[in-house]
Amino acid sequence: MKHLLTAMAIITAATAAQAQEVTTFDLDNGMEVVVIEDHRAPVAVHMVWYKIGSADEPEGTSGIAHFFEHLMFKQTDVLASGEFSATVAANGGSDNAFTSYDYTAYFQRIAADRLELMMQMESNRMTNLALTADNIETERNVILEERNQRTENNPSALAREQFNAALFQNHRYGVPIIGWKHEMEQLDLEDANAFYGRYYAPNNAILVVAGDVDPDDVRTLAETYYGVIPAEPDLPERLRPQEPPQRAERRITYTDPRVSQPYISRTYLAPERDPGAQEEAAALTYLAELLGGSSFTSDLGTALQFDTQTALYTNASYSGNSLDTGIFRVAVVPATGVTLSEAEAAMDQVIADFMENDIDPARIDSIRTQLHASEIYAMDNTQGLARRYGAALSQSLAVADVQAWPDILQSVTEADIKAAAAKVFNRDQAVTGWVVASQEDAR
Amino acid sequence: MKHLLTAMAIITAATAAQAQEVTTFDLDNGMEVVVIEDHRAPVAVHMVWYKIGSADEPEGTSGIAHFFEHLMFKQTDVLASGEFSATVAANGGSDNAFTSYDYTAYFQRIAADRLELMMQMESNRMTNLALTADNIETERNVILEERNQRTENNPSALAREQFNAALFQNHRYGVPIIGWKHEMEQLDLEDANAFYGRYYAPNNAILVVAGDVDPDDVRTLAETYYGVIPAEPDLPERLRPQEPPQRAERRITYTDPRVSQPYISRTYLAPERDPGAQEEAAALTYLAELLGGSSFTSDLGTALQFDTQTALYTNASYSGNSLDTGIFRVAVVPATGVTLSEAEAAMDQVIADFMENDIDPARIDSIRTQLHASEIYAMDNTQGLARRYGAALSQSLAVADVQAWPDILQSVTEADIKAAAAKVFNRDQAVTGWVVASQEDAR
Repeated sequence: MKHLLTAMAIITAATAAQAQEVTTFDLDNGMEVVVIEDHRAPVAVHMVWYKIGSADEPEGTSGIAHFFEHLMFKQTDVLASGEFSATVAANGGSDNAFTSYDYTAYFQRIAADRLELMMQMESNRMTNLALTADNIETERNVILEERNQRTENNPSALAREQFNAALFQNHRYGVPIIGWKHEMEQLDLEDANAFYGRYYAPNNAILVVAGDVDPDDVRTLAETYYGVIPAEPDLPERLRPQEPPQRAERRITYTDPRVSQPYISRTYLAPERDPGAQEEAAALTYLAELLGGSSFTSDLGTALQFDTQTALYTNASYSGNSLDTGIFRVAVVPATGVTLSEAEAAMDQVIADFMENDIDPARIDSIRTQLHASEIYAMDNTQGLARRYGAALSQSLAVADVQAWPDILQSVTEADIKAAAAKVFNRDQAVTGWVVASQEDAR
Repeated sequence: MKHLLTAMAIITAATAAQAQEVTTFDLDNGMEVVVIEDHRAPVAVHMVWYKIGSADEPEGTSGIAHFFEHLMFKQTDVLASGEFSATVAANGGSDNAFTSYDYTAYFQRIAADRLELMMQMESNRMTNLALTADNIETERNVILEERNQRTENNPSALAREQFNAALFQNHRYGVPIIGWKHEMEQLDLEDANAFYGRYYAPNNAILVVAGDVDPDDVRTLAETYYGVIPAEPDLPERLRPQEPPQRAERRITYTDPRVSQPYISRTYLAPERDPGAQEEAAALTYLAELLGGSSFTSDLGTALQFDTQTALYTNASYSGNSLDTGIFRVAVVPATGVTLSEAEAAMDQVIADFMENDIDPARIDSIRTQLHASEIYAMDNTQGLARRYGAALSQSLAVADVQAWPDILQSVTEADIKAAAAKVFNRDQAVTGWVVASQEDAR
């Protein structure tokens, strides 16, 4: 209890500060800049987010966004291959990068007085990467091995690929971020250079600097290093194919002898957080908690894991942090002796009961309080905040949307949750997947 | 019998002639030309095939290939809107156009001495179309209405869209040729002009002239009208995303109160006809006949419609005329009182029996003879032949492949059929669709 109070105290301070401490501006070449001040320790996080993710890839080149994330650590006109990360480490920092459907991001955590060095190197590789055929060959093997490890050797990952491919009828969220293997194998130097030339440009990037920094200093440095890079005049508009009306549930049984425990995973399309319109997403955050948050209190947990012992594990989750449509997922691992059909029927009964009955106001209040706390804790994590802003801005949200989110979460009502649930629980917009080791389990 | 003999005689003559009568050459700008001589009547068919179909459309603009087919009848620098068809009709001819996944084609049937006029007009609209925002507005309403008529008002068409979208995980064969409605609504003048500028060019087109014409005359005319049009230097290479390994069957129940009769439709991926490699496609042509050709002799027909009276209708079909992967489909309409589950089990039993048992050689011979006859009859239909060559060349086949096809069909063996069937009947690469009026029928 003492610990909690202490945490709250720090957090409240950080929260009060937060609204003032976020500074945003654009460079003349179109690069967006977000500065988040946190002077509690002399460290800084430096991130560059490119608004290019796997769902933006040219057709037939799946995996290239993630491939490029790897290639960005190769040689430039002044940096040797690997020198970027080695320099960060030599300066006592750490660096990393990640690729998602909607963005590719690079970041370093470093002593605040090394910020200029980070900008110097990061701005250098924005335009001066000097890839060779040899780089492609080497790094393509790395990503293929990564796919082997993460996907080919993982029946759940393979199953999820199949389910996603069936869930999205038109949108590239149906294509895996890592890429389809047969397309990854074909990625070549020409693809890489074309991708780099088109998408790696200041007018397609967001700079986020968080930590013990002064916004004016950041602006000066950003203008010096990033501001001199010309905008890419042929940057394509970010148009993505949207889903047509989905008219029928898709059902898939994925069979793989490596599956140790059969399970059911149903994924529905769900509204995402949109600029100025985050209310449904907030309501769905509650819905996931109510249905499948803690197994001790959630509807699926209490009904299937405790009351009837139908399930070993249940879960509900909502992903609404995306540029385009989000997803809502429910999953059940049946108990021994319970068939997938029985478990699915039980799962659907829980959903039906949820829709039919009132929600206990105390449960909503409890989630509201939890969310309040976790949003406050989040303010305390500067790196997490930086990531939040970078991702949000890459996904079309504005700084104001990020800042409004905690309050929107707090104002969700039972009626909002019920309305959002009624919209999401449409089996026509869903894939129901069974994952089994053998045909005998598929019943 | 007399009639048959007569037909055979004419056809044999035509066949003998056919190999010699097809002349092909390229214009300097890359336009391919095929001339098929048929001097039995003073008529000619004039076709221009563009190697641009719905599966080549830029993402997010589905329907634009077909939309453009409509727009090609609008005004050019010298033709008024509608004048093209009016002129063909005034000269005693008829014209039409069609769009598929792999091509868009325009053709006129006309007295042979009007060929020059056709080339004059067709070559004019290859580059001089002068679209207005008003054309877009008007014709977009036409295609939307066409979608209403053909798709929205047709539960089977809607179901097929859902099934195709689930069958293809990566390839644009999963997107309907007519387009997704929400994308059709957004097609604008800029999209249309970009599409026209990029794809409507002689180096992306095939001219097919068939009938009472002389190849040298056709060459002279083609050079005069088409040969003067410069090749498009920025014509993109025709790269299409291919399917990843498909790892699990997709099952869909499409429910629509307008469905009058429930049915099952299962679609498998299947090899297509490829240049120099048409043997599997030939074998699958037999497989479709054996399983679901005539209901009186096919395996599905005799077992389900006659022996057990499980079904009112059965069918098997193979579509291998495509640039990329083809499909093999089986369908069953259950008899009254038979559930879809029972009908599907019966259908699968027929397939299993087929794989297990030898094929009666007399049945293969009978199909061989039918195919021989139908290939011979096909030679007699000059317009059909012209269409065959145009489609084949649009789909990467060569003239030699078209000419080799009848012999390849004749040389199919039982082992070929069994091997092709074993490859195709892979449920992991299939969508099984149930189409019902209500949930009660879905059992």
